[in-house]
Amino acid sequence: MADAVAAPIAFSGNPLDRADNLRADPDALAGMMNWKARLLLLDGLMPSMDDGGRLAWGTLADAPEDAELVFLGLDRADGGEKACFAAVPPQGDARPRMANPQLWSLMTSLAPDQLALYGGARSLVDWHARHRFCAQCGGSTKVAKGGWQRTCTKCGTEHFPRTDPVTIMLVEYDGKLLLGRGLGWPEGRYSALAGFVEPGETIEEGVAREVLEETGVVVRDVSYILSQPWPFPSQLMLGCMAYADDDAITLDETELAEAGWFTRDEVQAALEGRDDAPIVAPPPHTIAHQLFRWWIAQ
Amino acid sequence: MADAVAAPIAFSGNPLDRADNLRADPDALAGMMNWKARLLLLDGLMPSMDDGGRLAWGTLADAPEDAELVFLGLDRADGGEKACFAAVPPQGDARPRMANPQLWSLMTSLAPDQLALYGGARSLVDWHARHRFCAQCGGSTKVAKGGWQRTCTKCGTEHFPRTDPVTIMLVEYDGKLLLGRGLGWPEGRYSALAGFVEPGETIEEGVAREVLEETGVVVRDVSYILSQPWPFPSQLMLGCMAYADDDAITLDETELAEAGWFTRDEVQAALEGRDDAPIVAPPPHTIAHQLFRWWIAQ
Ligand SMILES: [Zn+2]
Ligand SMILES: [Zn+2]
Repeated sequence: MADAVAAPIAFSGNPLDRADNLRADPDALAGMMNWKARLLLLDGLMPSMDDGGRLAWGTLADAPEDAELVFLGLDRADGGEKACFAAVPPQGDARPRMANPQLWSLMTSLAPDQLALYGGARSLVDWHARHRFCAQCGGSTKVAKGGWQRTCTKCGTEHFPRTDPVTIMLVEYDGKLLLGRGLGWPEGRYSALAGFVEPGETIEEGVAREVLEETGVVVRDVSYILSQPWPFPSQLMLGCMAYADDDAITLDETELAEAGWFTRDEVQAALEGRDDAPIVAPPPHTIAHQLFRWWIAQ
Repeated sequence: MADAVAAPIAFSGNPLDRADNLRADPDALAGMMNWKARLLLLDGLMPSMDDGGRLAWGTLADAPEDAELVFLGLDRADGGEKACFAAVPPQGDARPRMANPQLWSLMTSLAPDQLALYGGARSLVDWHARHRFCAQCGGSTKVAKGGWQRTCTKCGTEHFPRTDPVTIMLVEYDGKLLLGRGLGWPEGRYSALAGFVEPGETIEEGVAREVLEETGVVVRDVSYILSQPWPFPSQLMLGCMAYADDDAITLDETELAEAGWFTRDEVQAALEGRDDAPIVAPPPHTIAHQLFRWWIAQ
């Protein structure tokens, strides 16, 4: 387990009560959509901040008149019970750029509970913005169940927010870790290998396939370490550990620019950001960074 | 880990090499689509069987002329390398009935590798059949990357097969397991609680939320045990264990008909199908059944 991980992983720890029982209760939902309800202020998909560096909130009157509203949950801080909503923006973001400097700055500055609240809300409203039509029939869809469903106005098909499971794994051989540099990444920036779980495979099978595809390395003894919701756009990252019996690498050059094996000292140096580190570690908000830390602590 | 689980879990162990490098290579794909290629014979979404009780295969000539074909992978049994395909059926199945007797009979009669191959293929072609239109713009989509993508003919948006992560969990208190009977289930049929992971939560947070929502029970020390691909239509089941400090149940009657705590002897009796068992256990092909077995073996 992830006992050695320093802090709750980024984007976890959403402080709202999702109050899912209210989603299917149109009267209760309508009753909450009054002057006391809070609206998460977004500029497109980016959050607005208040003077204290926290997420800024307005009232439902701040939403565009025709905006679809999604129910994020109940805020029970301060002993109250405030209903929290977000408005679906005009455009979603199907290919969020990980390198967006605004986003990376957010991840550094927002408190963990604020980041979790924003991440979950972002995934949800982004999904709505990109699912205004029905994949079954092409008809237009409309928000339902407080934003936890869209329903086709033409054929009635129900659509649900999507979360894609992704494996991300440390592979160890002879005390060293197998890491890769993605295509287009800066020189020296390495991370754990990763890939989407496909229909018809377990987590463990997904890990083994992905490592084999990208590096030709055969793994055994896959174990799950920790998970992370990653809101760009909506992945469930499944952090795993695995072992290899051979260090020969056959690189898939359509996926990776480089791959190599790195010692405990080298990974430690990268985590500390030392000048003599042979690689640059992924930033602290990533599950890869937390997996590195977990491995060093073993 | 899942060492105590008797056999590989149902729907895992697909014997094909997914050969993902070929998906993005239109020339290679076209080159494989010849008289030697094999077509998985389906009747809608149900498999056809050969005389030996295995999945029946034909050639690409057996597919309807306008059918979209998806590349399942390479069959390397017998030392050869046969390219395996399936045709997208006219209709998908957005709400597969778990109780379909034909399906349950299949799960009992098909060998594990055959069941895994069928399950993965079913999830994939079903997804295609239900995604002929673009959720972004309503335009029509067409198959791409050997069936591992659909691309909108109008706006160019790329769509990928969907797999939904679902937590399913044993909760223990004082040596007893918390189990529930779903709405509409036969009298006495109990299983582990389960629910979809939502955007913005970890596996562990999803487990805790779902148990709290359905039964009012607070859990701690969530650990991952094993996973299963479930092809009705395409879930990644995440089997977990958790502990409670109190056995008081507040039932969510919109989700469950009943919930209760069951002793080791009672769960054992259910697994053995004994007459004196107070509950009927889920069938062997389910991850719930394997979790029961795992728990008994602890
Ligand atoms: Zn429709
Ligand atoms: Zn489109």
